[in-house]
Amino acid sequence: MNNFSFYNPTKIIFGKNRITEIGKEIRNNNHKRILLLAGQGSIKTNGVYDQITASLKENKIDFVEMWGVQANPTLEKVNETIEFARKHDVDSILAVGGGSVIDSAKAVAVGFYLDDLWLFMQRKVQAKEALPLYTVLTISATGSEMNSGFVITNSKTQQKWGGGSPLLFPRVSVIDPSIQFSLPWDQTVNGGLDAIAHILEYYFVDDKAITTREIDKALIRTIISMVDRLQENPQDYSARANLAWSATLALNGISGIGMNGGDWACHTIEHALSALHPKIAHGAGLGVIFPAWIEYMVFKYPEKFSDWFEIWGEDNSISALISMRNKLRDWGSPVALRDLCIRKDELDKIADKIMEFPVIGSFSKFTREDIESILILAY
Amino acid sequence: MNNFSFYNPTKIIFGKNRITEIGKEIRNNNHKRILLLAGQGSIKTNGVYDQITASLKENKIDFVEMWGVQANPTLEKVNETIEFARKHDVDSILAVGGGSVIDSAKAVAVGFYLDDLWLFMQRKVQAKEALPLYTVLTISATGSEMNSGFVITNSKTQQKWGGGSPLLFPRVSVIDPSIQFSLPWDQTVNGGLDAIAHILEYYFVDDKAITTREIDKALIRTIISMVDRLQENPQDYSARANLAWSATLALNGISGIGMNGGDWACHTIEHALSALHPKIAHGAGLGVIFPAWIEYMVFKYPEKFSDWFEIWGEDNSISALISMRNKLRDWGSPVALRDLCIRKDELDKIADKIMEFPVIGSFSKFTREDIESILILAY
Repeated sequence: MNNFSFYNPTKIIFGKNRITEIGKEIRNNNHKRILLLAGQGSIKTNGVYDQITASLKENKIDFVEMWGVQANPTLEKVNETIEFARKHDVDSILAVGGGSVIDSAKAVAVGFYLDDLWLFMQRKVQAKEALPLYTVLTISATGSEMNSGFVITNSKTQQKWGGGSPLLFPRVSVIDPSIQFSLPWDQTVNGGLDAIAHILEYYFVDDKAITTREIDKALIRTIISMVDRLQENPQDYSARANLAWSATLALNGISGIGMNGGDWACHTIEHALSALHPKIAHGAGLGVIFPAWIEYMVFKYPEKFSDWFEIWGEDNSISALISMRNKLRDWGSPVALRDLCIRKDELDKIADKIMEFPVIGSFSKFTREDIESILILAY
Repeated sequence: MNNFSFYNPTKIIFGKNRITEIGKEIRNNNHKRILLLAGQGSIKTNGVYDQITASLKENKIDFVEMWGVQANPTLEKVNETIEFARKHDVDSILAVGGGSVIDSAKAVAVGFYLDDLWLFMQRKVQAKEALPLYTVLTISATGSEMNSGFVITNSKTQQKWGGGSPLLFPRVSVIDPSIQFSLPWDQTVNGGLDAIAHILEYYFVDDKAITTREIDKALIRTIISMVDRLQENPQDYSARANLAWSATLALNGISGIGMNGGDWACHTIEHALSALHPKIAHGAGLGVIFPAWIEYMVFKYPEKFSDWFEIWGEDNSISALISMRNKLRDWGSPVALRDLCIRKDELDKIADKIMEFPVIGSFSKFTREDIESILILAY
């Protein structure tokens, strides 16, 4: 088991009817003027916006609002929001939404104190401070509500890059699973696939991190079983709640203990894919890439793939891959790049885009040949 | 799944050769004069003391030393240490040892600012501040290195009581599993049993907290399997490391998410037992009490006991209880109160002592009759 450090100071407030607690939490931290950052407006129809603004007013917290964060959030929108935040002199940020909104809020929080956020993304400058961050989660998927990382897209350069800093752990995140009752089915599935992918990015790194592997298998099995239940009944509270908490644990550090930070080749590949095709949902892209990656890696590193198939109730990797893709089909999710409307003659351009990343993968540093093989397996 | 809040800001530094990092961590937090609290001196023979003091000196941190914390640590020793800490005007505490030393350090940290610590234990006064706390763990068992609770014994009144405060999360805890290579076998077993008991205190509360139950089963299975490996080879690093991390997770909040704080009847019973017989190791006592508690409860609440036996690879509770007690015997651990040299005519006095606690258990509030039945099953 590899050495590790673990630190995660985010306070989680989880459960039914707890969104109204957010104002008190912000007040307890002495923040007085907050930027409320949100997406396309769904929180105005499901009552979340009203609960939050009532709680802010009750606790005498001033707020200004910025709307319009989209999936695969852009550097341009982030920079616009940074200007807005400076103009209104806020002392903190409240992100209300899913991973895209929370990731944008993190980018704004750190960019608020920088001349050029993209230099930070390129690891050319370091962050010394960031605006304190609060979140109210509306879609369980990315785990951003309890970690210090984020991903944004530079539309000009078509680069979807990740960044992070210990300064960016949210102070408090509220997760009310019942507000996810009304999520469209594909978003529920994509959230589950994103969470599964986060766990799998860690899983194969070290077979001696037994505690972590056993927890990871438990989490993936739970996620699959909860998504199955939600296919039957989208308003199954216990399934929403257990899926939500599993998705948070999938990327709050616990699922990757002793795994040297994880592999992340599949995320890199998917980021290149959705940088070129911003309409591809992150979870759906990962659902296509991950089985292909496993198919490719299992022959190169058989010792690392000696028990993952237990998750699928199988006794070998080939049967498990079939089960995994069958589960995707049962959920109505794409299983191949062609299902995502990628043309075969685009694969070269996609491989070019992937190769722009300085490093692809951790336990195997991929060459262009590796990438091409995986793309063909995924096609 | 019940609503919950989760907050745990302790930073964990885990792995081989990392004890020397403690000085830098303390310096980074601007603490300059620390109380080093330790037990009976084993850290002087295994090199831990030398590593720590070298690291403190290198980082220019003054320290004063207090030795002699014993198993089932006493209020008297804690009060003596509080006086010592005040006299030397320390600004923080470094606990080096197992649960007894860390629990004592927490009691000192909060008692430092109180007139009478026992009033705090009796919930008659509240704590507003506490000395910042660091730990270097030498025995994995209680999880105290990553939580905010502690247990001490008032020898005069023969009361072993627990306390806690969010102020008492250690800032940083260092866990180097390799320093546990030299632990006596019974301490390894008792540590594993303590960790298993912590998980079981939560497990039965809510069968809808599926994520937590699946993680809990994974943790208990891992603990059993790692203790088995250590019985073969006490210097198996991977087994020490996975046991250590599982024991931390067993009581850092993760194992009890959505479980309303847990049940804790077995801990209450064991605390009464070891208040009367301070030589009984906490883990060994729990190993005797828990199977008896399950034996008693399974008939009253069959729905809550519908899957725990999977941990033992069994399909019903009776077979699982047999497997559990057989495992205790394989490990050379007591399975009955008479193995702990309790006389049958003492059971009445033990029941009296248990009944002194204001509440015993959570999902079933025990009467004296319940307690007597469990003691007889445990005898």
